[in-house]
Amino acid sequence: MPASSLILNRRDLDFLLHEWLDVESLVKRPRYAEHSRETFDAVLDLAEQIATEHFAPHNRTADENEPRFVDGRVEMIPEVGRALAVFAGAGLLAGEFDERFGGMQLPHTVGQAVFAWFKAANVGTSAYPFLTMANARLLIAHGSDEQVETYVRPMVEGRWFGTMALSEPQAGSSLADITTRAERQDDGTYRLTGNKMWISGGDHELTENIVHLVLAKIPGGPPGVKGISLFVVPKYLVDADGSLGERNDVVLAGLNHKMGYRGTTNTLLNFGEGGHTPGGRAGAVGYLVGEEHRGLTYMFHMMNEARIGVGMGATVLGYTGYLHALEYARTRTQGRPPAAKDPTSPAVRIIEHTDVRRMLLAAKSYAEGGLALGLYCARLVDEEQTAEAPEARDRAHLLLEMLTPIAKAWPSQYGPVADDLAIQVHGGYGYTRDYPVEQFYRDNRLNPIHEGTNGIQGLDLLGRKVLMQDGAGLRLLGETITATTARAAGTAWAGFAADLDAAVARLGAVTATLWGAGDPAVTLANATAYLEAAGHVVVAWLWLEQALATREESTPFYEGKRAAARYFHRYELPAVHTRLDLLESLDRTVLDTDETWL
Amino acid sequence: MPASSLILNRRDLDFLLHEWLDVESLVKRPRYAEHSRETFDAVLDLAEQIATEHFAPHNRTADENEPRFVDGRVEMIPEVGRALAVFAGAGLLAGEFDERFGGMQLPHTVGQAVFAWFKAANVGTSAYPFLTMANARLLIAHGSDEQVETYVRPMVEGRWFGTMALSEPQAGSSLADITTRAERQDDGTYRLTGNKMWISGGDHELTENIVHLVLAKIPGGPPGVKGISLFVVPKYLVDADGSLGERNDVVLAGLNHKMGYRGTTNTLLNFGEGGHTPGGRAGAVGYLVGEEHRGLTYMFHMMNEARIGVGMGATVLGYTGYLHALEYARTRTQGRPPAAKDPTSPAVRIIEHTDVRRMLLAAKSYAEGGLALGLYCARLVDEEQTAEAPEARDRAHLLLEMLTPIAKAWPSQYGPVADDLAIQVHGGYGYTRDYPVEQFYRDNRLNPIHEGTNGIQGLDLLGRKVLMQDGAGLRLLGETITATTARAAGTAWAGFAADLDAAVARLGAVTATLWGAGDPAVTLANATAYLEAAGHVVVAWLWLEQALATREESTPFYEGKRAAARYFHRYELPAVHTRLDLLESLDRTVLDTDETWL
Repeated sequence: MPASSLILNRRDLDFLLHEWLDVESLVKRPRYAEHSRETFDAVLDLAEQIATEHFAPHNRTADENEPRFVDGRVEMIPEVGRALAVFAGAGLLAGEFDERFGGMQLPHTVGQAVFAWFKAANVGTSAYPFLTMANARLLIAHGSDEQVETYVRPMVEGRWFGTMALSEPQAGSSLADITTRAERQDDGTYRLTGNKMWISGGDHELTENIVHLVLAKIPGGPPGVKGISLFVVPKYLVDADGSLGERNDVVLAGLNHKMGYRGTTNTLLNFGEGGHTPGGRAGAVGYLVGEEHRGLTYMFHMMNEARIGVGMGATVLGYTGYLHALEYARTRTQGRPPAAKDPTSPAVRIIEHTDVRRMLLAAKSYAEGGLALGLYCARLVDEEQTAEAPEARDRAHLLLEMLTPIAKAWPSQYGPVADDLAIQVHGGYGYTRDYPVEQFYRDNRLNPIHEGTNGIQGLDLLGRKVLMQDGAGLRLLGETITATTARAAGTAWAGFAADLDAAVARLGAVTATLWGAGDPAVTLANATAYLEAAGHVVVAWLWLEQALATREESTPFYEGKRAAARYFHRYELPAVHTRLDLLESLDRTVLDTDETWL
Repeated sequence: MPASSLILNRRDLDFLLHEWLDVESLVKRPRYAEHSRETFDAVLDLAEQIATEHFAPHNRTADENEPRFVDGRVEMIPEVGRALAVFAGAGLLAGEFDERFGGMQLPHTVGQAVFAWFKAANVGTSAYPFLTMANARLLIAHGSDEQVETYVRPMVEGRWFGTMALSEPQAGSSLADITTRAERQDDGTYRLTGNKMWISGGDHELTENIVHLVLAKIPGGPPGVKGISLFVVPKYLVDADGSLGERNDVVLAGLNHKMGYRGTTNTLLNFGEGGHTPGGRAGAVGYLVGEEHRGLTYMFHMMNEARIGVGMGATVLGYTGYLHALEYARTRTQGRPPAAKDPTSPAVRIIEHTDVRRMLLAAKSYAEGGLALGLYCARLVDEEQTAEAPEARDRAHLLLEMLTPIAKAWPSQYGPVADDLAIQVHGGYGYTRDYPVEQFYRDNRLNPIHEGTNGIQGLDLLGRKVLMQDGAGLRLLGETITATTARAAGTAWAGFAADLDAAVARLGAVTATLWGAGDPAVTLANATAYLEAAGHVVVAWLWLEQALATREESTPFYEGKRAAARYFHRYELPAVHTRLDLLESLDRTVLDTDETWL
């Protein structure tokens, strides 16, 4: 079992939450009035303890014994259910939910920090409550009172788990092409038929019921995404008194076998294919959420949250990789520094080799930078939902829209790099299954794919987000960054701030150039490079923010923050300009590459 | 079983070998006088066929059923032995060896192209002959006639396999610290005691004997690497008539369980720990190769070859990943281009999405660029060994010394990126074990670690190679590159050539700045960035070479070469300057980062 210090760095979480984001100030708001620094600390202590004692110990076991499809059911190791029972029993599933559901009404920022412990300790097991919380939040936002009462309460209590069933075998990224049908019935319910693919947590015996949120098309609706509706489809129908009734026609058709993230069962589900016929009629029973044909809008509410959550997962998998590598580098001895000519001098700990420190510092800058990004976005969620002034809420909403593709894609790109570096620091040992870093590397590879591939995030940022409100989002991001750089004037960070100002100004100018091209195919041809440039600008900004928050105090912790900030400034920020050069030139290399040339 | 077109692209091999490297001209040299374009084609045809029919089909099976340690022996799936018997039976193990051993005396360039098929089809199985050939070549170069006769012949015939036993549990990268001892005996033999770690192919039942080449220290010798000697230590002692005698005291102590590359058994071996005591005396019997204390020099002969071979392996694993992604992208339909507003229009094949083509073009530039690098180095080996003029040999040797760390590290960095992109092109399917790309990704992750980590290659290049002969190596590399850029004058490639000239000039200037720093710790602090900059310059050069070799002919194949060359010029070459900026500033960020700050 790893010590908690190998999962996450509590000191860093405290720094980000309190010294930087001033989460304590949220307790002045009515929703959080019962809270204080002490309650926040207590729930973080609890999370750290449960993650360490109940989640981390079976992380490898779950990887080596992935869920199996046996007699139409999912079999998995019992440790998963036990850990989740402890998690739910401690009230952590309910953490951010209303008191009316037995929740703690924690700020989202604290909730994200709490949940980070579980993703870092065991991403496979933590996916079940992650999906359940997202599902419940969507129903609270868009479901009827009856749906909330029937489905949300058991989920928040951890008695039922939830899923999101969007993708189909032929339609992963392209939801416009889903073919699952929902036929309206006389009683107001719907009957669903179709196949859903890549459904995490789609079946299991962990809970007595599973609440699927399913995208489907009602015949006669508009084509494409405008004809998508959202349905609650429980595994077992629920009687009026809340007890479980008949089995619904949701049938497990198979499990996907993944490179990593193996603890999370990932399923192919058939809806309405005759495995069960509730009431003797064909089709899985579904209940419309909100209005017909508005399903994708509701789902995006959940997806934005899920995207930031995926980014957080990628970050903390990189973070735990970094901590493991750091521990290894502090203890493993090997070789001598260049200056030591005497081969009989004792071998040094590998952390004394500059290139090993380079790898660790790079990994630290990705892991802690990603964590700052995730928590900053969570803080914006709190602002969007509970700020008193409506304009503050609007600003938070707009900034969050801008940052969401970055908060998903940047950590999904650099979290795996941190794990790659963690393997490299371990040398041959890191490539073996006797050390945990190879699993982190495999687990983390999922993140650039799910919840919208990173390529799609680039199209979202450049093709949609920067155009919102006539470019107000990008201007707001720029103003927010330059407010930080202004604070750096006259400090040791003025040089970093000036370089960041230049990058921000150029990002704005290049965006104008791109949208002045007159041909969306040209504008969007290098959307991924745009996303990477914007992501590095944002993370550089958050490193400047962190550097300023150290207030030049000189403990090793603060020195480390400043070293990582310098690293990001010197080693990473310049890459923004090579990408902007490419974008500015409206490069057509790829656009003009015929598929037959590949 | 994948078609051969998913393993490697024979058209590309032919282009590189004949249209670019003019391998056919080698047949004018006495050693290759029996050869012709026809014999080269025939052996490549044979390799393609055997790789496709005997190696590729069990690549996944071997991954899923890795070698097991049972009753002190290694058990593995029978397909491995069968494939290797076909390989050896076809004379491919002997391909490059002298006719006196039954070899074909193929040029190394052709031999590398032949072997590329096997590494791409099944890197795990192909490691056994790879190590055996390297072992045999070392013995031919440095062993006694008797050692050559006793050990090389059975290896070249494929009856015995060979290993290299360098690393120990406490000394992987740092060979100065090995502790295996070799005690001189009255009969001129040695007795070895110690433990060797990470020994690929260290034990198995594939062949009746295994020839270990072992580094050990003779007591009383100089400390550090200057006291290392090299020994032949066979698993079974060999009687005077060549028949197998007593079991030697080399005992399999355990297997390492890796993330990938699982088909290659990787072992912990104990020498002289009492499992067997030949002649009733303690210690494994070993025979000195060459002179005492010169073992590392001999081993480096093999290591340079092995390093280029590791780079080739990384390249072709990336190459096959690219080909699989290309095939997938040409058949999988999903979504619509930005211009297609009508959601009822049919979904397009994903290769029509610009970002998918970007990923494929990037992967192509890494895979084909790496292959050009590996074959160019092989061509230098042929030049070094068979050029008539001594000065041509010297030049080839010097250039090869310069390129070796790059030929190892660059493909080890970008081959895995090609496989990463291959997964991304596949989306969720690529993350499952139903598709082969996730295995390529896992297999390829070993390459930045073994045969000298990439960090060590950086120290080798900047700390040793650029200093050789007062900087003659770097000057030669620069002259070689500018000879190419001069040929680009007045062509469509003049812009690329000018940018490359600028990068080469700057690399030289920055090298002088680095070595003018007056403190090796400062000079070498960013050796990895230096290696990356030099690697990108070299591969950009080889892309310019390939572009020029297309002679502006306009088939899809040549258009593809030129598109990839443009990609490398526009998207990749600029990154050289961000690294050179950092190096030029003698950046101390990492050097000055105290370990307690991490």
